Amino acid sequence: MEGPALPSPTAHTAHRPPSSSHVRLTGGPWLRWQRVNREVSLPLALEWLEKAGNLRNLRIAAGEAEGGYRGPVYMDSDVHKILESAAWELGHGPDAALSDFVGRTARLLERAQEEDGYLDSHYQVAEPDRRWSRLVDSHEMYCAGHLMQAAVAAHRAAADADGRLLTVARRFADHLADVFLAGPGPGLDGHPEVETALVELYRVTGERRYLELASAFVERRGRGLVGRHKHGSAHRQDHLPVREAPTLTGHAVRGLYLEAGIVDVAVETGDSALLAASAARWADMAATKTALTGGLGSRQVGEVFGERYELPPDLAYNETCASAASVQWSWRLLLATGDARYADLIERTVFNAFGAARSADGRRYYKGNPLQRRADHAEAVGDPRWRDEWFFSACCPPAVTRLVGSLEHYAVTVSEDAGCPTLHLQQFTPLTLSCPLAGGGLGLRVETGYPWDGAVRVTVTEAPPQPWALALRIPPWSARTSLEVDGERYPAERDERGYAVLRRDWRSGDTVTLRLDMAPRLTVPHPRVDAVRGCAAVERGPLVYCFEQVDQEAGTDVDDLALPPGVTFQEVEREDLDGAGRTVVLRADAVAVAGEHEAGLPYRRHGGPHAADRRRAAAVTAVPYFQWDNRGDGAMRVWMPLLSG
Amino acid sequence: MEGPALPSPTAHTAHRPPSSSHVRLTGGPWLRWQRVNREVSLPLALEWLEKAGNLRNLRIAAGEAEGGYRGPVYMDSDVHKILESAAWELGHGPDAALSDFVGRTARLLERAQEEDGYLDSHYQVAEPDRRWSRLVDSHEMYCAGHLMQAAVAAHRAAADADGRLLTVARRFADHLADVFLAGPGPGLDGHPEVETALVELYRVTGERRYLELASAFVERRGRGLVGRHKHGSAHRQDHLPVREAPTLTGHAVRGLYLEAGIVDVAVETGDSALLAASAARWADMAATKTALTGGLGSRQVGEVFGERYELPPDLAYNETCASAASVQWSWRLLLATGDARYADLIERTVFNAFGAARSADGRRYYKGNPLQRRADHAEAVGDPRWRDEWFFSACCPPAVTRLVGSLEHYAVTVSEDAGCPTLHLQQFTPLTLSCPLAGGGLGLRVETGYPWDGAVRVTVTEAPPQPWALALRIPPWSARTSLEVDGERYPAERDERGYAVLRRDWRSGDTVTLRLDMAPRLTVPHPRVDAVRGCAAVERGPLVYCFEQVDQEAGTDVDDLALPPGVTFQEVEREDLDGAGRTVVLRADAVAVAGEHEAGLPYRRHGGPHAADRRRAAAVTAVPYFQWDNRGDGAMRVWMPLLSG
Repeated sequence: MEGPALPSPTAHTAHRPPSSSHVRLTGGPWLRWQRVNREVSLPLALEWLEKAGNLRNLRIAAGEAEGGYRGPVYMDSDVHKILESAAWELGHGPDAALSDFVGRTARLLERAQEEDGYLDSHYQVAEPDRRWSRLVDSHEMYCAGHLMQAAVAAHRAAADADGRLLTVARRFADHLADVFLAGPGPGLDGHPEVETALVELYRVTGERRYLELASAFVERRGRGLVGRHKHGSAHRQDHLPVREAPTLTGHAVRGLYLEAGIVDVAVETGDSALLAASAARWADMAATKTALTGGLGSRQVGEVFGERYELPPDLAYNETCASAASVQWSWRLLLATGDARYADLIERTVFNAFGAARSADGRRYYKGNPLQRRADHAEAVGDPRWRDEWFFSACCPPAVTRLVGSLEHYAVTVSEDAGCPTLHLQQFTPLTLSCPLAGGGLGLRVETGYPWDGAVRVTVTEAPPQPWALALRIPPWSARTSLEVDGERYPAERDERGYAVLRRDWRSGDTVTLRLDMAPRLTVPHPRVDAVRGCAAVERGPLVYCFEQVDQEAGTDVDDLALPPGVTFQEVEREDLDGAGRTVVLRADAVAVAGEHEAGLPYRRHGGPHAADRRRAAAVTAVPYFQWDNRGDGAMRVWMPLLSG
Repeated sequence: MEGPALPSPTAHTAHRPPSSSHVRLTGGPWLRWQRVNREVSLPLALEWLEKAGNLRNLRIAAGEAEGGYRGPVYMDSDVHKILESAAWELGHGPDAALSDFVGRTARLLERAQEEDGYLDSHYQVAEPDRRWSRLVDSHEMYCAGHLMQAAVAAHRAAADADGRLLTVARRFADHLADVFLAGPGPGLDGHPEVETALVELYRVTGERRYLELASAFVERRGRGLVGRHKHGSAHRQDHLPVREAPTLTGHAVRGLYLEAGIVDVAVETGDSALLAASAARWADMAATKTALTGGLGSRQVGEVFGERYELPPDLAYNETCASAASVQWSWRLLLATGDARYADLIERTVFNAFGAARSADGRRYYKGNPLQRRADHAEAVGDPRWRDEWFFSACCPPAVTRLVGSLEHYAVTVSEDAGCPTLHLQQFTPLTLSCPLAGGGLGLRVETGYPWDGAVRVTVTEAPPQPWALALRIPPWSARTSLEVDGERYPAERDERGYAVLRRDWRSGDTVTLRLDMAPRLTVPHPRVDAVRGCAAVERGPLVYCFEQVDQEAGTDVDDLALPPGVTFQEVEREDLDGAGRTVVLRADAVAVAGEHEAGLPYRRHGGPHAADRRRAAAVTAVPYFQWDNRGDGAMRVWMPLLSG
């Protein structure tokens, strides 16, 4: 089964997903998330698509129901994203309800589709005269893109047996090409997404017009053609051509989807300058606009990237959709360049910002993913600080289900480094893999208690006849890494691309054991990150930890805690954290600080009479951020004040 | 001439404005602001009321112009607030253009007013059938309140000679009372403001129905009667009765106007429990939700108060209208209780958050007043970080002009402390005062270079026959204060109310010299103020200072600067800061820190290989925050990292 973003055979990429591979997760949190996805989240999503009216909108468009359109203009996209999610899950094994949903919905879409291929229930039902007339906000191509991605996923996961969904998507894509490639106007959509989708559809169908259209949309952007928006053209990434823009600006999800499309176009057309422009923005984003959890988009107003180093823990938006989009962009850059730093950020994002978006039981979602919540958050007004089952603007739940459903496809890449076929293990999760390599069939089994344990054991279960290399990503946080092949020590140094590469004659039964340094570590911010100055975060392996009120001593507020110099953390295994699964909890001796007010204000003279806050010892407990908020809605913080010597 | 918030003779207040007083500013920044107000800001505002369509809306309502209503529903309120501003300025002396505007506009309002007293051009012109039908958002009573306040101001400033404006306001107030006091439904407005306005109108007219209606509106609030709002009932302060709500929540300006009305009702009805509830919320706000500049309302989303101690310098909204509303509330609490801490906050707010809202030339306004702006702010999307001449929602410019126009009225109060008539000097600004006191006429002259110099010289120019006391507010930041009466030292200790009180037999020619400690001081935040942990701000007297890029050494970014332990500041006088007037600039030897990235992210391992940031010496310059952004749109910060020993 193939996964997302599979470059065409002629694409210019350093790495590729293993072709005709079969990857199956066999344990760990990612498998747990997939099980919850299949058993809880998707059945619930199918209910919501009825309750919220998404499917009814399509039935009205098909002439099979009465009444008016309900919801925001992009209601169709939720249907398409759940279709894509269902397709990936069907790739894991049969499920009658999901199959039935995909089949029924493909037929509904077929009936709702216009003669000319157009398909968008909002404009068909509510505003038939306004088709393609207000692209800055209409989301018509955004919805079209998600339809294409659903069809591509169903095709790759063999969940669209009769090809019906692919036909619907192609008819819409052909219509798009007729209108916007050959057409008179230089239209483009206010919400990027169709660019990457068109390239994916090109990859599946070989139809070059789709690639040409994607390329045209990418090149048209940044010239003020999208249309006026209250937050200005930068909000829609329409202020600077994509070859010139130095930094991610504006609506985070839009910007990230656009970048995924840019890389897709660049690798399929061999445009290295276009690729370099996107990679430069990625590096700028990583260095200046990325939360410790991988969360992106600091500002709630406009759901946008903020200024460089504007990374507030409490006010950050860090939209769930942005986390998922970031993974898609990083994955494409990883394939394009083979540089492990993209896999590093994928890991950070999936295990933290993305992992926390859904409750452990699979029922509730965050749209925003801040790194701090105060005790009185429920009294304040603004962006809600709790998860919900569904939303009026329900983009985030299906963003979770579709990425969770395809997580195994981000674990492995292959390359021909220095003429040697190489299999790169990008992510550490229990899995089995079989794929063609080096003129034969390769089989691997990965066993690990990761992210709780740092030992990753890879067993070659089937060895191809020719030599090949096994490359293991060495995460930069692992201070002491060791590597053994069949019991013998090997150097475990990260090469310039970020991997430890083992080139040898492999035989079935060979084992490699990678040991990553899972010692809890304190992380401090760059001095320009104003919002968490003087603080440290606790990390362990790929996991960012947080301090939840529920785990602290009675009478100690999370917001009074601080870490003393030289603090050390003890690791304590816990079998199940109220549904969040196995975990390693971290405990330390810290202090609680009772601050003083001066003149009734939260400020005081430096060195003045109240200069010494009252401190007392307090034992503290931290849990993985991705498991937070499964045990009540108390205060939480990732960044903890670090007292100086 | 009388000023804003003049309690009726039977009101229960500890202090009162001096009755029949004449206060005139004679120098200092406040007088400069009033001159700019009169010469630049108000003439510009009159142009904008034509350009934006506010006056045309009223002409359409009066049947004297054609066309449709323009702008947000509350366009009338801008007219009323400029009327109020013009009235206060006319109290300072004649001005033909302002007199003409007040007279013409009063007649226009008279013609636009309906038979039954209703007057709101939006509903009259655009939605005549929806009058009073959607109070949660209609702003009808908000506009009515500002009309009443304009009429009250014009009456007190003798700028409504024919009483026309007062008649229009009364007719509308009578209509309000008919509909909402005697009426069947328990309606109340989504935007408080009419409460304080009705009490003021009661004070001018003696009509008790206005007080009763204000009281009814105050008591109705907090019971979910306002109507549904997307941010919930707390956004409209409708979630808890005003006698129970523990903290300021929701839309900051709405909350603050409501509190002003609550105190007005409490003092006029002698309701000490109601007063205590408001005072408790003020103390909570001061201690946990107030920026160092006095700015209020941390969140841009919904323009709301955030969580306790959520005080981000960069993302703070700190709306200009909220600063003005805060002054109005604090002034009412000062009168009610006589406690100088309310005058302390008035001073902090006026000289900092409020003072910075308008450019030095009087032409441009901030709506939001953050304490930090980064170099790349112009690239980011969201709330604009620059001033503008006017706005689509133009609430803030007239909020500035009306408070600036009446600033002298906040300088002095009188009381009968312990049976002794006492004149309290609440604010330090050059002024002359004449008012009746202690059975005679009191005359005072205040001379000072404040806020640049700490010496405040008060000369008694006319002494009443009976003994009286002079009370001087001692700001809590003045570490070493001295006091001389006719050259003789007196104790300058702040009593439990915050004043140094001089009781003696005064004679004309007596002089008192107060010397406040103007040494620059470093201020640090309470440990719960997460967003500026590890930082210090520089203050001098009542002024918060800031570091603007334009004043720093070439090649040194403001965002790289830090203050070393034991830093001291040198004071340098500058005659004119590009139109911002005389100033004292502060210079210090600081350091510039070049941070390191690790693994391409803005985080690194504590104590890791890159643990030492590169530091170099850098001379730094700070200017008063209220004078910032008059010399280009570079970076700025109030809070500066403070390196530990």
